Amino acid sequence: MSALADKAVEYCRDLAQCTEEPGRITRTFLSPPMHDVHRMLGAWMLQLGMDVSIDAAGNLRGVRAGAPRGRLIIGSHLDTVPDAGAFDGILGVVLGMTLVEALGNSPSAPTIEVIGFSEEEGVRFGVPFIGSRSVAGTPGEDVLTPAVLDAIRDFGLDPANLPAARLSIETTAYLEFHIEQGPVLENLDLPLGIVDAIAGQSRLALTFHGRANHAGTTPMSLRRDALTAASEWICHVETIAAAAPGLVATAGSISVEPNATNVIPGVARVSLDVRHANDEARHAAVAELLDAAARICARRDISLCHERRLDQSAVAMSPELRHTLAAAVEAAGYPVHHMTSGAGHDAMILAPHLPAAMLFLRSPGGVSHHPDESVLVKDVDAAIEAGLRFIHSV
Amino acid sequence: MSALADKAVEYCRDLAQCTEEPGRITRTFLSPPMHDVHRMLGAWMLQLGMDVSIDAAGNLRGVRAGAPRGRLIIGSHLDTVPDAGAFDGILGVVLGMTLVEALGNSPSAPTIEVIGFSEEEGVRFGVPFIGSRSVAGTPGEDVLTPAVLDAIRDFGLDPANLPAARLSIETTAYLEFHIEQGPVLENLDLPLGIVDAIAGQSRLALTFHGRANHAGTTPMSLRRDALTAASEWICHVETIAAAAPGLVATAGSISVEPNATNVIPGVARVSLDVRHANDEARHAAVAELLDAAARICARRDISLCHERRLDQSAVAMSPELRHTLAAAVEAAGYPVHHMTSGAGHDAMILAPHLPAAMLFLRSPGGVSHHPDESVLVKDVDAAIEAGLRFIHSV
Repeated sequence: MSALADKAVEYCRDLAQCTEEPGRITRTFLSPPMHDVHRMLGAWMLQLGMDVSIDAAGNLRGVRAGAPRGRLIIGSHLDTVPDAGAFDGILGVVLGMTLVEALGNSPSAPTIEVIGFSEEEGVRFGVPFIGSRSVAGTPGEDVLTPAVLDAIRDFGLDPANLPAARLSIETTAYLEFHIEQGPVLENLDLPLGIVDAIAGQSRLALTFHGRANHAGTTPMSLRRDALTAASEWICHVETIAAAAPGLVATAGSISVEPNATNVIPGVARVSLDVRHANDEARHAAVAELLDAAARICARRDISLCHERRLDQSAVAMSPELRHTLAAAVEAAGYPVHHMTSGAGHDAMILAPHLPAAMLFLRSPGGVSHHPDESVLVKDVDAAIEAGLRFIHSV
Repeated sequence: MSALADKAVEYCRDLAQCTEEPGRITRTFLSPPMHDVHRMLGAWMLQLGMDVSIDAAGNLRGVRAGAPRGRLIIGSHLDTVPDAGAFDGILGVVLGMTLVEALGNSPSAPTIEVIGFSEEEGVRFGVPFIGSRSVAGTPGEDVLTPAVLDAIRDFGLDPANLPAARLSIETTAYLEFHIEQGPVLENLDLPLGIVDAIAGQSRLALTFHGRANHAGTTPMSLRRDALTAASEWICHVETIAAAAPGLVATAGSISVEPNATNVIPGVARVSLDVRHANDEARHAAVAELLDAAARICARRDISLCHERRLDQSAVAMSPELRHTLAAAVEAAGYPVHHMTSGAGHDAMILAPHLPAAMLFLRSPGGVSHHPDESVLVKDVDAAIEAGLRFIHSV
């Protein structure tokens, strides 16, 4: 099966040539190179005897008719971040095609629909998941802005046909292959990870208000330094998250005022990103972190305010399909490892509408959203082996 | 004497009308409103029978002939920072004039030269102390840049006469009154402080290099977060400085890359400002802080580099004049408090050339370089009383 894995990796690298920026991989929602991607993948679909279409959201869809027991969607996204790697998203589409090719004329597989979603990253219009939300039938006005509708028309599609993009009622399952985009599998020396849930996410902005003052003339005991308060709290964030299994918490951005070498910071603004597969655990962690900030600020005579910017619930994958996927991985001869996805994926959008499963492939170096992003051929081979067994089990 | 104190405060507020920006006090080196300041103060000097001149560096100088026992300079600066208060610098010049007025025809006082230095803040050309360095006879090429020379000519002065700006060889002492610009005297409920030394200063830039990574997909145990490393160190800076008498250490500016809510910071840059009246204590503190940073970074697999940006030695005031000033404060009926100046002043420039002394007046709220900067009339009165006794003792 290694020849198919080689071909899949090679194919991803070929598709990476479809870019808006020469020398870098950048392919946003319905940008001109998306036509080339559709042409290449569409030709492969036709060659395998699939029914090919592009829906009104710009999703490429190929259907392989199979045994009369529902329909399995295998999908991921075709768009990229700016200066991306060659595997995030598109590997999941290419693996879907590879599996259809591997099935050949096998009559026992169910009907399979391979979907290349037009948009997941949210780069072009600041709105993510345009593709999968259209397939889920939930593209609200926040998604279908006038600019998005114009882009659809400019690409040669008709927004009036968007309702028809909704997934077929015979669809019974969704499977997504995706690179892990993190270091966990590599660290455990494992090729594959079965996603149990996509973590819920809280984002907050905290502002520490102290008093700016002269760095030379203000004794340590008379300071109300906003940055030392924020620093003490950032250390707490790390300690609390490290002690709670499955929790990640990050202070990713910081700015201080006046931000001068010789002035004690009067204001510090810090972002907080908290994720956990369990929403209660996440909410409890956010409360604990805000309590810690309040205690630190009270002791330092610093005033604190915070703003909640995002509170996105965790999305569980289908327990039945997780079990089926684990059995497929095991039958293929690979260790079973269950894990949480810390990042959002199209599977998160489709999971409320039908049973969904997700299989991660190890990310060498944990690198993604970067030209160095890669995947190991032997891991792609493992994903193909597990995928074939999964298809025959659903 | 309170009438004189009232008048001095009033006079400073009047002079604050001389500004480059309507509604804000901004008066940089040889800017047009400096002509108005010279005219107002010059008229007062003439009225008191003083010899008035403006030297080639733009310093306003008035000499009151006195008893034949040397010459005492009483001076401070006439320029301001942008959007300044009404007292930083100019109060010291106005107090010099007030003392000359208070002396009347007293024959026992020595010759007094009141100097209003043209520049101390370094705002207009990024070079501080243009005025006092010219009087000290040490304006190097770093001070007398082509732009500075042009500004001198534009103001109607001739740079060829700069050597004549040097202080008279009969000068025996320098006295500077200045607002404290810090909270120490207010916190002790004291009107006056005798400056023993102007603190030496180290400035460094530290860069913490970790690894940027996805905030959702990277477990806490696999992170190399540059900001948590920097935060741990910033807390150490505060702890170490708080434990060392007379030491102040400040992380005033910080920036991280990529500075996004959902990305673990890969790089953090932090400034460090360390001051102490004793250079050895300062150098030891800097070494200790760098050691702490190295230890923190080694434990966290973060690479650290630092750059030394400034290493300015402490400048002691004359022990003899400190004693004289303390005696004068005590004789005037006020508590004697010795302290370090954490900020630089013209006295720092003149101290290597002649015995220098400096008297701080309490800064309400510790506020300076701000429109809210103020001074209490009763403290100005205390300064006048102490100043008169000082003059008769030198």
